[in-house]
Amino acid sequence: MSDSQLSHYECGHCAATAGMDELIATCPACGGPLLARYDLQGARADRIPAPGRGIWRWSGLLPVPEAGRIELGTGDTPLLPTTIGAWLGTGATWIKDEAANPTASFKARGMAVAIGRARALGARSLVVPSAGNAACAAAAYAAAAGLPLTVFMPADVPDSFRIEARAYAARVELVDGLIDECGRRAQAMAERDGSFNLATFREPGRVEGKKTMGFEIAEQMGWRLPEVLIYPTGGGTGIVALWKAFEELEALGLIGPERPRLVMVQAETCAPLVRAFEAGNTQAEPWENGATVADGLRVPKSFGDRLVLGALRRSRGRAVTVSDGQMLEYARIMASKTGIFPCPEGAACLAAQVKLAREGWIGPEDRVVLFNTGSALKYLHLWPNSTHPD
Amino acid sequence: MSDSQLSHYECGHCAATAGMDELIATCPACGGPLLARYDLQGARADRIPAPGRGIWRWSGLLPVPEAGRIELGTGDTPLLPTTIGAWLGTGATWIKDEAANPTASFKARGMAVAIGRARALGARSLVVPSAGNAACAAAAYAAAAGLPLTVFMPADVPDSFRIEARAYAARVELVDGLIDECGRRAQAMAERDGSFNLATFREPGRVEGKKTMGFEIAEQMGWRLPEVLIYPTGGGTGIVALWKAFEELEALGLIGPERPRLVMVQAETCAPLVRAFEAGNTQAEPWENGATVADGLRVPKSFGDRLVLGALRRSRGRAVTVSDGQMLEYARIMASKTGIFPCPEGAACLAAQVKLAREGWIGPEDRVVLFNTGSALKYLHLWPNSTHPD
Ligand SMILES: [Zn+2]
Ligand SMILES: [Zn+2]
Repeated sequence: MSDSQLSHYECGHCAATAGMDELIATCPACGGPLLARYDLQGARADRIPAPGRGIWRWSGLLPVPEAGRIELGTGDTPLLPTTIGAWLGTGATWIKDEAANPTASFKARGMAVAIGRARALGARSLVVPSAGNAACAAAAYAAAAGLPLTVFMPADVPDSFRIEARAYAARVELVDGLIDECGRRAQAMAERDGSFNLATFREPGRVEGKKTMGFEIAEQMGWRLPEVLIYPTGGGTGIVALWKAFEELEALGLIGPERPRLVMVQAETCAPLVRAFEAGNTQAEPWENGATVADGLRVPKSFGDRLVLGALRRSRGRAVTVSDGQMLEYARIMASKTGIFPCPEGAACLAAQVKLAREGWIGPEDRVVLFNTGSALKYLHLWPNSTHPD
Repeated sequence: MSDSQLSHYECGHCAATAGMDELIATCPACGGPLLARYDLQGARADRIPAPGRGIWRWSGLLPVPEAGRIELGTGDTPLLPTTIGAWLGTGATWIKDEAANPTASFKARGMAVAIGRARALGARSLVVPSAGNAACAAAAYAAAAGLPLTVFMPADVPDSFRIEARAYAARVELVDGLIDECGRRAQAMAERDGSFNLATFREPGRVEGKKTMGFEIAEQMGWRLPEVLIYPTGGGTGIVALWKAFEELEALGLIGPERPRLVMVQAETCAPLVRAFEAGNTQAEPWENGATVADGLRVPKSFGDRLVLGALRRSRGRAVTVSDGQMLEYARIMASKTGIFPCPEGAACLAAQVKLAREGWIGPEDRVVLFNTGSALKYLHLWPNSTHPD
């Protein structure tokens, strides 16, 4: 494992900079989201990726000193070939199966880095607002790090998330409201007792952890990126992170200037970023009364909206909505045709691919990567449950 | 990936041999379990393990020709360091976290190999009896292989297993009875319509797939095996497979003659192999009315009992029972102290380690590996589920 080549933080909104030795959270000038910047000359000299397994192979490009690296087997998830391209008439199609992560979701990556950084820089307690998987991931890494964690979670999330987060001994506070209300409660707690707030875009570690998905896809495809990446988008950290990953790989000379077109998928019934993208706006208005079976997509307002919309446009990408019914239908199709058991967010990517293939926006020359962001095992309530033989 | 160095099959009971070109299941002479034998001179010349990820890195020592290798991201699960050894006064303790496999359990390994072999040798349909995770794993690989699968499952298994197996479009038949009755139904179907029966020890692929757990542990520990391996045991394929893995690694010159002491863990309320081990018997009598919350341990009679008991004795191992209450207690302890969310079978290993550490049978010099065979996400019904804040 190599040393972190972290150099400083830079605000994604106003470009102000901040040093790296303190447990800084957001831009000291404007309150915007901070992005980690590296000494890429120093990093180039290192061996990146290092041998071995998991996200710490990329530690030169992560903001976590060695003492903060928690080992739960994060990352190096499989990129699985499928027959989807052949049915749809697109190019070859892979699924990046993030269910292989600790806590069975992609949220593990961001939390490994955010909590590792927070621990290394002296955090004594943690807090996070979450609509589901992020709570479980934070709870697992907090347990492994020996740090107490409080989770604010909407009271109506499926039982599975609450049970799992509590199993790791997190304190789970159920909130009447959506993730935005949970976010306010978490922020208030952080201000009140100094707990470090792990909310999306409110600290720089989670984007950095998710970046490793982009690193791995590039490596798994022999440093030849796909033409299209389809990604389910709640807060949008993943979109920002993938784009940042490719920029850093290019700076290191591992890939050229080619980029995939990024497709952002949201639920028809909670699509603030899609609405903003289609209206040509640079920021998104909050979505009222958002509701969807895909808990990870139930995010009415993203604090990183400007960064997400910017990355999507620079990639010449698309923003697509799918209905809850389509997610359930394509989950069934994906499971029975591929052997992958997707969460509704993962199924949404296949629904989006079908839509864009029919439109001709994805053609036979386009190699496609879909993200299954987590396991269906936390969403069993969405599947048929007959006790009678078929 | 290298070619399979499979040479022939050998009966584990009568040592009769059988060829490798047909889809043979059990010993043609006595009906006993067949073990795959390799040309280890040929294998030695190959590069084993091959570079890359997953169980097919070991394809030289697996009975699956290249055309049968199904890619779902099987194997290369993390071996996680923990602080357990420090609390218990044993040597360093790792957990092999098999929840990172496809379908979130160790059963993926055996099914990847058994179904890959069956497909390559011309199977047209599959059948399996299962008390839980094996059904889900078989269903996922059958879906990926494009082969129809029928599962016979006790009617009282938790919903999660039935829902997941059906999601992959397996036909699930619920049976009033335990796994042994399911086994009879599966065998009858195989005889009736020619479906290939994937039951434990009724075909040679599943042991071979599970063997990769032993290969990976040896590699992850720098080819210096631990002093103690603690393994939860239903049918016992894993014990036989681990022992076979070490014999093959020694024949290849990758390890020496040292072996871990193997600890077999069963549920207090369904412990046919522990009873036989303690009585000094070479075979186990069926356990009447076995019942435990650990569905993977609810196996009243193992067809491979002689092989399991033989391997355990040669390792100078132990056979231990733990109660359901202990499994639930140690599951909670493991989750909150390590960030790993274990199935009851995995928690049983920690309970066994505590018992043997107190006895002094595991001492401060003994490095220990525990197996978490699957994810707790299929066992959420065993965890507290309060909707009230703590
Ligand atoms: Zn700023
Ligand atoms: Zn025989």
